[in-house]
Amino acid sequence: MRATFEATPNIAVVKYWGKRDEKLILPTEGSLSFTMDETLKTRTTVVYSKKFKADSFWLNGQKIDLSDKETAERLQLLDVIRRKAGIQDKAHIASLNCFPTAAGFASSAAGLAALSCAASMAAGLKLNPRETSMLARLGSGSACRSVLGGFVEWKKGVKADGSDSFAEQVAPATHWPEIRNVIAVVDATKKKVSSRAGMKQTVATSQLYKARLAYLPGLIHDMKKAVLAKDFETFGELTMRESSNMHAVMLDTWPPILYLNDHSKDVMHAVNEFNANGIQAAYTFDAGPNAHVYTTKNQAGAVQKMLEEIPGVTETLVCGVGNGPKRLETGHLLDESGNVIPHAFNQSKGIVFT
Amino acid sequence: MRATFEATPNIAVVKYWGKRDEKLILPTEGSLSFTMDETLKTRTTVVYSKKFKADSFWLNGQKIDLSDKETAERLQLLDVIRRKAGIQDKAHIASLNCFPTAAGFASSAAGLAALSCAASMAAGLKLNPRETSMLARLGSGSACRSVLGGFVEWKKGVKADGSDSFAEQVAPATHWPEIRNVIAVVDATKKKVSSRAGMKQTVATSQLYKARLAYLPGLIHDMKKAVLAKDFETFGELTMRESSNMHAVMLDTWPPILYLNDHSKDVMHAVNEFNANGIQAAYTFDAGPNAHVYTTKNQAGAVQKMLEEIPGVTETLVCGVGNGPKRLETGHLLDESGNVIPHAFNQSKGIVFT
Repeated sequence: MRATFEATPNIAVVKYWGKRDEKLILPTEGSLSFTMDETLKTRTTVVYSKKFKADSFWLNGQKIDLSDKETAERLQLLDVIRRKAGIQDKAHIASLNCFPTAAGFASSAAGLAALSCAASMAAGLKLNPRETSMLARLGSGSACRSVLGGFVEWKKGVKADGSDSFAEQVAPATHWPEIRNVIAVVDATKKKVSSRAGMKQTVATSQLYKARLAYLPGLIHDMKKAVLAKDFETFGELTMRESSNMHAVMLDTWPPILYLNDHSKDVMHAVNEFNANGIQAAYTFDAGPNAHVYTTKNQAGAVQKMLEEIPGVTETLVCGVGNGPKRLETGHLLDESGNVIPHAFNQSKGIVFT
Repeated sequence: MRATFEATPNIAVVKYWGKRDEKLILPTEGSLSFTMDETLKTRTTVVYSKKFKADSFWLNGQKIDLSDKETAERLQLLDVIRRKAGIQDKAHIASLNCFPTAAGFASSAAGLAALSCAASMAAGLKLNPRETSMLARLGSGSACRSVLGGFVEWKKGVKADGSDSFAEQVAPATHWPEIRNVIAVVDATKKKVSSRAGMKQTVATSQLYKARLAYLPGLIHDMKKAVLAKDFETFGELTMRESSNMHAVMLDTWPPILYLNDHSKDVMHAVNEFNANGIQAAYTFDAGPNAHVYTTKNQAGAVQKMLEEIPGVTETLVCGVGNGPKRLETGHLLDESGNVIPHAFNQSKGIVFT
């Protein structure tokens, strides 16, 4: 009844921004992303036991208060797993973000993907990626894409019960191994609006949102085609336009949601200049000001240098495309009785486990 | 054959962003604005003479090169006036921005409105405001609204020749005399994309633009209703949402158009906080980062103070609503022979003429 998994973030090129079902986390449209390699990863161990009086959760060694409403919602997948497995045991969960820096890339996607894998495995369920992705989706929509490696689509689905809204691999990491994502961390002092609250506001108030929804199916088709053809020029332009399209409907939300800052804009301008003779780099921004610049292996160094020269960019990091979650046989964060293994958490954030 | 007019800028609450005819400057949709009072104004003198070999233009005392394509396009209204008046005389034009500070609020709207009035009058034409507004429109679309005072609508029109695309007063300045516009000038280092080029790109590339066009007719109806009812709460919310809607389609343009900067965002956040107990102030941003915050007389001082406390706001200025262009019998910038009157230009920008 113990399992440990590692999972990695995914960075969308067609973004998820809006739900058609708040409880089941069903999206208004499909989305597409690359799952990142292990440059950034989250490790999670789950143990079930009849002895536990309640579910408990340790994140980076700190016990987390599960009475918080949003945290409780994110863990609803535990009840689904117990129902499927026919057990009532409570769970101990320990999770550790193994990031090379303290840059704050805490990724709910990586965390929820690792949790879905570990919690279902520890409960004795043998799920396929589609089923696991639906569990992850219940914790954090975009997490469902991190259950698979390579280039991944989250299918919108049409059913009310969510049974056709899952992630599917479009192409494995080996299809386009040259793809890199250069992350540019920028100074940001502004308070962040949570994605969950923000996208709800957008769906409710943006005058432009329906036009975005009308645009996305064709974009998803074109983006998949570009990736399958390894056509970076098309992929890059579509990626940048899609990022701005999402931030446009965020701005058009009432009250407005403003994630991009002047440093983000500087990155956009610098990338556009870098691309003067053809698109070789493509920015995309999630619900925050940090830039993710997709490029290819032979340009990654030049892109990183270009980004490092922008005032306000405090740190850069180059990721490749990864293979999705993997099960670990050693390096558990909890012992078999569900007790935290202290030395597992004593490692600094700067050290990636082996 | 000499006439001098003063005109003032207008600040739109439903914005003009997109042409259906590039040459005749016909908009894709209607727009609405208040014409400002004489806090900011432009004075223009026009003289025609058979003795002049060419049209000449002095702006703030400097002779302007009329071979520049964009300047030439802006002055196409002179040929229209000559055709209407049956004259072929060349014109001398002198224009002076009478702004209390050097803050850079050079307003093509005020300039082109004053020019349309002065140039048609000097040519012996007796035009009504509708006809004058159509002349101003040929110079700079939004200038057509500055030909009238108070709350003004630029009618989209449907005819190919532009004869039904003109400005019309919705309510005079006396209807809602309490309205104020507090201008917040912010630090801006970025190079500005010209409105003319920018809106053309938006029409050509934004996926969201059609949704904006679908939204505007209802918005224009609701905005007029709110102003006629002097309902600031509704007026303010619609104004802020419309500003963001326009900047959203700018962001959704390819390549993206980014006028708002971090200081603009700070103003937006500060105004939203100021409005915590009800909307008493409403920001709107034109094609640049400076904020125009509409409010009412009894709140203007508090709004100005609030804006002055925002880091990055370098200057504020309070304007009321004005009555539109007026003809001057003294204070000409050119003598009757069309020679520049030097002392008229010797006055500093800090001095408003009497």
